[in-house]
Amino acid sequence: MQRHFVQELEMLKTNLVKMASFAEQAIADSIAALLERRKDIAEQVIARDKRINSLEIQIDDAVVDLLALQQPVATDLRFILAALKINNDLERIGDHAVNIAESALQCAKLPSGTPLTNIPEMAEITKKMLRDAIDGFIHSNAGLGRAVLKGDDTIDDLNKKIVNDLVAVIRNEPNSIDEALDLIRVSRNLERVADLATNIAEEVIFMAEARVVKHHVEESPLSQ
Amino acid sequence: MQRHFVQELEMLKTNLVKMASFAEQAIADSIAALLERRKDIAEQVIARDKRINSLEIQIDDAVVDLLALQQPVATDLRFILAALKINNDLERIGDHAVNIAESALQCAKLPSGTPLTNIPEMAEITKKMLRDAIDGFIHSNAGLGRAVLKGDDTIDDLNKKIVNDLVAVIRNEPNSIDEALDLIRVSRNLERVADLATNIAEEVIFMAEARVVKHHVEESPLSQ
Repeated sequence: MQRHFVQELEMLKTNLVKMASFAEQAIADSIAALLERRKDIAEQVIARDKRINSLEIQIDDAVVDLLALQQPVATDLRFILAALKINNDLERIGDHAVNIAESALQCAKLPSGTPLTNIPEMAEITKKMLRDAIDGFIHSNAGLGRAVLKGDDTIDDLNKKIVNDLVAVIRNEPNSIDEALDLIRVSRNLERVADLATNIAEEVIFMAEARVVKHHVEESPLSQ
Repeated sequence: MQRHFVQELEMLKTNLVKMASFAEQAIADSIAALLERRKDIAEQVIARDKRINSLEIQIDDAVVDLLALQQPVATDLRFILAALKINNDLERIGDHAVNIAESALQCAKLPSGTPLTNIPEMAEITKKMLRDAIDGFIHSNAGLGRAVLKGDDTIDDLNKKIVNDLVAVIRNEPNSIDEALDLIRVSRNLERVADLATNIAEEVIFMAEARVVKHHVEESPLSQ
């Protein structure tokens, strides 16, 4: 029974790492599709979202089974609960990648010319936050988790700047409205991805240190 | 021990109902602030988000304690896991209410005149979906949950129509851009709230019937 439990925990972790790599790839590809005006990549991101959704259900089922059959406590329980939340966050990141890919498809149909403003920079920072959050999870490294939390304000500022700049673009060049609105949508989706990376980082810290850091409230360790 | 467990489950449910009523109120108020151009209500929604965030942490802690100390199985385990997810969905709904309230504040500063398009109708449907999802949870009613799932496509269509109509407004009246962009933001936030109401409804059905209905895949009942 005990050996079985250890194997199931390992399998859960392996599947979550796979889920994380799917989500990370989806974001990277959706941004590449936008910047390189590649419809084929955008369509691939949209088509591949199904496998993220199936894996989410598979992981959720594994968590329910583990909790029901093994009744874990302490560190294992913390890990399993973090896995449940991270799984959900990753699935949502996949949805945002689909939104970005849809906007990339729209933009690729239009004549290029609208400035991308700070979107490439924002995309790089967001991808780095997601990478650190995932690495933090894989290595149970609270330090990486904390690094992610620091990026969130930068992303919020960039999002505001990008939206303002694109509004100015529309004012000066009303014909650019379709592309500019899609770029605003991309910026807001990246902002949500950074939020979700922050959620994952909070779970990583919770798992590593048993502290709740959500909403930037540092609480005392949980009693268990 | 057993009586203690029953009391803790009851307390969890009571707190989740409270959380749901906070989230529901936040959405209703943020929409009222937008439609009635009431800055005071918008500011109240933003200020009150803190109590939603604290209650989320309190409920999360209660779930961890219940799982660690009571090691529930079967129906109780399903309920507790659903509670964990619904709690997270409600907190996110609170965040979307804050986004809508921020846009309401911006709009209230501008001269009124930009048509609200189908936003009032979309808000009514979204509020109804949220209400049904919450009622479904309170009464463990899978039928109400299923009714919510049906609303999601309507909301997606309304969101697309509203965005298209507001783009047309900006084309005809470039000076309306600030207000129109805030209205587009409101529409997208309502769409996310409807998505989250759908998630809650899926959890309600899972809880009531032990079926996974996520991503519209109907699976066989979980073995436990």
